[in-house]
Amino acid sequence: MGKEQTIAIVGGTGNLGSAIGRRLAKAGYRVVIGSRVAASAVDEAERIGHGATGAVNAEAAAAGDVVLVTVPFGAQAATLQDIIPYVSGKIVVDATVPLVPPKVMRVQLPPEGSAALKAKAILGDGVTLVSAFHNVAAHKLAQDIDVGCDVLVFGDDKAARGVVVELANAMGLRGLHAGVLVNSAAAEAMTSLLIFMNKYYSVDGAGITITGKLIEPETP
Amino acid sequence: MGKEQTIAIVGGTGNLGSAIGRRLAKAGYRVVIGSRVAASAVDEAERIGHGATGAVNAEAAAAGDVVLVTVPFGAQAATLQDIIPYVSGKIVVDATVPLVPPKVMRVQLPPEGSAALKAKAILGDGVTLVSAFHNVAAHKLAQDIDVGCDVLVFGDDKAARGVVVELANAMGLRGLHAGVLVNSAAAEAMTSLLIFMNKYYSVDGAGITITGKLIEPETP
Repeated sequence: MGKEQTIAIVGGTGNLGSAIGRRLAKAGYRVVIGSRVAASAVDEAERIGHGATGAVNAEAAAAGDVVLVTVPFGAQAATLQDIIPYVSGKIVVDATVPLVPPKVMRVQLPPEGSAALKAKAILGDGVTLVSAFHNVAAHKLAQDIDVGCDVLVFGDDKAARGVVVELANAMGLRGLHAGVLVNSAAAEAMTSLLIFMNKYYSVDGAGITITGKLIEPETP
Repeated sequence: MGKEQTIAIVGGTGNLGSAIGRRLAKAGYRVVIGSRVAASAVDEAERIGHGATGAVNAEAAAAGDVVLVTVPFGAQAATLQDIIPYVSGKIVVDATVPLVPPKVMRVQLPPEGSAALKAKAILGDGVTLVSAFHNVAAHKLAQDIDVGCDVLVFGDDKAARGVVVELANAMGLRGLHAGVLVNSAAAEAMTSLLIFMNKYYSVDGAGITITGKLIEPETP
């Protein structure tokens, strides 16, 4: 999959979505920023530049070959419902972290086990679901600096995971295959730890990296 | 808390427990290796040297000022039941990872939410429970090499967490406060990801590190 593909970012006016959109647009991908309000999406796309465009979430999802969803946990269900008609057969990348304010430093996984499994239950088998980008500090991603955080990529479809690993790499991060979709719970939970550490250790955006000599397997 | 304290390692003849015991004994701590079979514990203690001794798990727990529990998930409940009479008022450090063979690359958190919360339910409020050492590759810890893995330490009692952070640091690792006990789910789940990555990327013992400039807060 190459850079001629269109990447939709549903919730793309939020901190994480706009930072991802900016990096992907800079890397040469065609980016469509989605928002509940079309004018906000258009404004954000103009700010990003590099050919990015803006539209309401549903239209953005319809335009995307790959559809990223970057919304707060509280908006996840309604947002996914909105885009269902437009994502059939596509790769949907859910970045939802199940933070439940005010106790965001406390792991509070949802009854489904993870936000990714909740997304799976809503979207059904008609889409290829991947989850990723849970641990990256948005305010660091928004700058041209080394974010210092691996992107753990989860999904039951290895090829779809590979597409998202490639997107992360194109953004100057390191994308890593991290196994099946249910494993997403680990990265989603990790975000609460990172928020705790940011406070406890006075860090500006702690991240995680996987150590060891990771060798990308040869693809046949 | 200093090195005159006795550290009991229940399940200390296993790969993780013996590796922890060896590093702590080398660092100058009084270590008591526990096992279901006294002779096995004594043998392991002799192998470790540095003054380590061995006993059945209950005796080891009774002798310990701090009691580490390093057993497989399937043995956790019975082992904790065995030591209840001997750990009242002590810090118990549970290292249990809820791996459910054969699918060890798949996150399978228990109904309680984590192995740590299961331990809490069994041990009750009479002990100060901490969880840690979920992600360290035992076979690397058993050698005198850089393990390349932070030790995330969980617990509702900050001082008790601090004791375990200090133990990890004394072992040549980096111990980090990672918040309340429920947060343990993140590190427990992460182990399945590391096992997946070991296979997918042909790594010999992947680990995790937290990035960012972590500054230990001043203790008043």
